[in-house]
Amino acid sequence: MAESDVQNGVEKTLSFKAFKPQLLLQAPKATDAVDFYKAAFAAEELNRTLHSKRKAEQETPAILSVELRVSDFSLLVSNVFDDSASAEKVAESRVVLFLETEDIEAAVSKAVSAGAVVESKIAEGDGPYVGNRVAKLKDPFGFTWLIGTPAKESPVGEV
Amino acid sequence: MAESDVQNGVEKTLSFKAFKPQLLLQAPKATDAVDFYKAAFAAEELNRTLHSKRKAEQETPAILSVELRVSDFSLLVSNVFDDSASAEKVAESRVVLFLETEDIEAAVSKAVSAGAVVESKIAEGDGPYVGNRVAKLKDPFGFTWLIGTPAKESPVGEV
Repeated sequence: MAESDVQNGVEKTLSFKAFKPQLLLQAPKATDAVDFYKAAFAAEELNRTLHSKRKAEQETPAILSVELRVSDFSLLVSNVFDDSASAEKVAESRVVLFLETEDIEAAVSKAVSAGAVVESKIAEGDGPYVGNRVAKLKDPFGFTWLIGTPAKESPVGEV
Repeated sequence: MAESDVQNGVEKTLSFKAFKPQLLLQAPKATDAVDFYKAAFAAEELNRTLHSKRKAEQETPAILSVELRVSDFSLLVSNVFDDSASAEKVAESRVVLFLETEDIEAAVSKAVSAGAVVESKIAEGDGPYVGNRVAKLKDPFGFTWLIGTPAKESPVGEV
């Protein structure tokens, strides 16, 4: 049974559609890590996101993130570049927990009420989260959570 | 399509039945963390494992690990006690990735061939893994994986 909230007299049930641990690696190690997870766990590559800036500057586009599937389970393997805002996060917490929901405002609000701290407000996602609106939260125990939802207003083909 | 192995002329497909990130917390914080995830993400408690030694010594049995369900996804929230062998692991890597399989020997062997290092050989699990045979591996990128399988020979009712 899912827990329910009563807000403004309307009962709302919070639900999540996906849960994907994201492994952060100092760039460019994610490429080798992806090869390892394919070899070690028979992981299958679902999609990869390239680094848009580096794509223009270099011959070989740098990998930003790869989504892998291990049986029925998803895993994101991502490079953190030194010029990225999240570079400092690699040492601190190398696994980020991503939850996909249909109602990001309600999900963030509920988590904050419970004691989570917003590290990045709801905004257009980048890297593996392009096409999604994403917020980054730190829970009271030091774990980082990303709450995301597919962007409704994004025109088809723009992503 | 799952990746296949040809071993001794027999094609084997490696598959996993569950994937559960395990969050490690310095004891006794897991109790509060469980309350937080219930409040923040509408997580539902599936089961809890108590600390058998501390159960005898103390009035209130200490929680070792709680399995939570967030929508269709499982998460383990575990206390690490100072007297535990894994105490040092909390600072180093606070998220451990658990994979359940039906053929633990094949899964461990494949991961080791790919470059993983065995930290704990296949043995009877404790805490949230009681009733399972579990091996602990470190991948070449510093992440810790537990590969587990339900123990076949364990008599019903002994766990």
